[in-house]
Amino acid sequence: MVILGIDPGFATVGFGVISSERGRTALIRCGAITTPAGLPLSRRLVRIAEDMETLIGQFRPAVMAVEQLFFNTNVTTGIGVAQARGVILLTAEKMGLSVFEYTPSQVKQAVVGYGKAEKRQMMEMTKKLLCMPVAPRPDDAEDALAAALCHARSVTSLLHHREK
Amino acid sequence: MVILGIDPGFATVGFGVISSERGRTALIRCGAITTPAGLPLSRRLVRIAEDMETLIGQFRPAVMAVEQLFFNTNVTTGIGVAQARGVILLTAEKMGLSVFEYTPSQVKQAVVGYGKAEKRQMMEMTKKLLCMPVAPRPDDAEDALAAALCHARSVTSLLHHREK
Repeated sequence: MVILGIDPGFATVGFGVISSERGRTALIRCGAITTPAGLPLSRRLVRIAEDMETLIGQFRPAVMAVEQLFFNTNVTTGIGVAQARGVILLTAEKMGLSVFEYTPSQVKQAVVGYGKAEKRQMMEMTKKLLCMPVAPRPDDAEDALAAALCHARSVTSLLHHREK
Repeated sequence: MVILGIDPGFATVGFGVISSERGRTALIRCGAITTPAGLPLSRRLVRIAEDMETLIGQFRPAVMAVEQLFFNTNVTTGIGVAQARGVILLTAEKMGLSVFEYTPSQVKQAVVGYGKAEKRQMMEMTKKLLCMPVAPRPDDAEDALAAALCHARSVTSLLHHREK
């Protein structure tokens, strides 16, 4: 199964595409979609939708995994992120992907095994689980890969439970 | 010119379609798009996008006017509204509308002539400017019509300034 993990943003959308087969995960591609600050809001949203369509068309993921959104710091940035996130969810749903949302602590729990894991631990485990020689770049891509891994490992553990 | 005013929301999107010719405004249609609470988030966003497409296809507005978003009360509701707003802006932009954003006080200033106008005053002036026998329903439609009127009256006053 190919899983697309997304770290939503307005200026930068992190993405991570992984494969997950019988509990084994591997990196396919990661990176970021960026939108120019000079463009009007609605044009930037169109760019995000178009780039998401290209990404999904290229890698044909069955599933999109994305973190739930919480506003704890900057509310103004949060509005932009939420608007972009709406466009991302819409595009995935329209293109037939199953959309799964996870809380930040679910992602940490699934990747590191501890819901309050630190950034550095997340980075190390993401690298290890995907057999990457270096840490994923940019940061947004790392968060996106973590969301994808969370889905892969949640599904696997569900299957294991069922098989017992 | 046909103007579409939108009051963004996740459960309810208010809309108001008006015509504006040489400083005269008239109501074409108003109402609300609603999404069922039982549907998953991404499916509700698809519903909003589809209903927006139908609305735009039916009335062929040249412009969409929408209030800027501020989070002052309920942040959790705000996330839903912002996600829906992203989808609404995307749909309008993709269908070739010019998108204009106004602050709440710009809308009040344009409709009532006073940036801190109260809800009741806004309702009265909206009714009057659109020659409506009764107040628009639901509330979301009223806010949408006010945004559309704001655009109509802002453009008109710009033209008057230019002609002087």
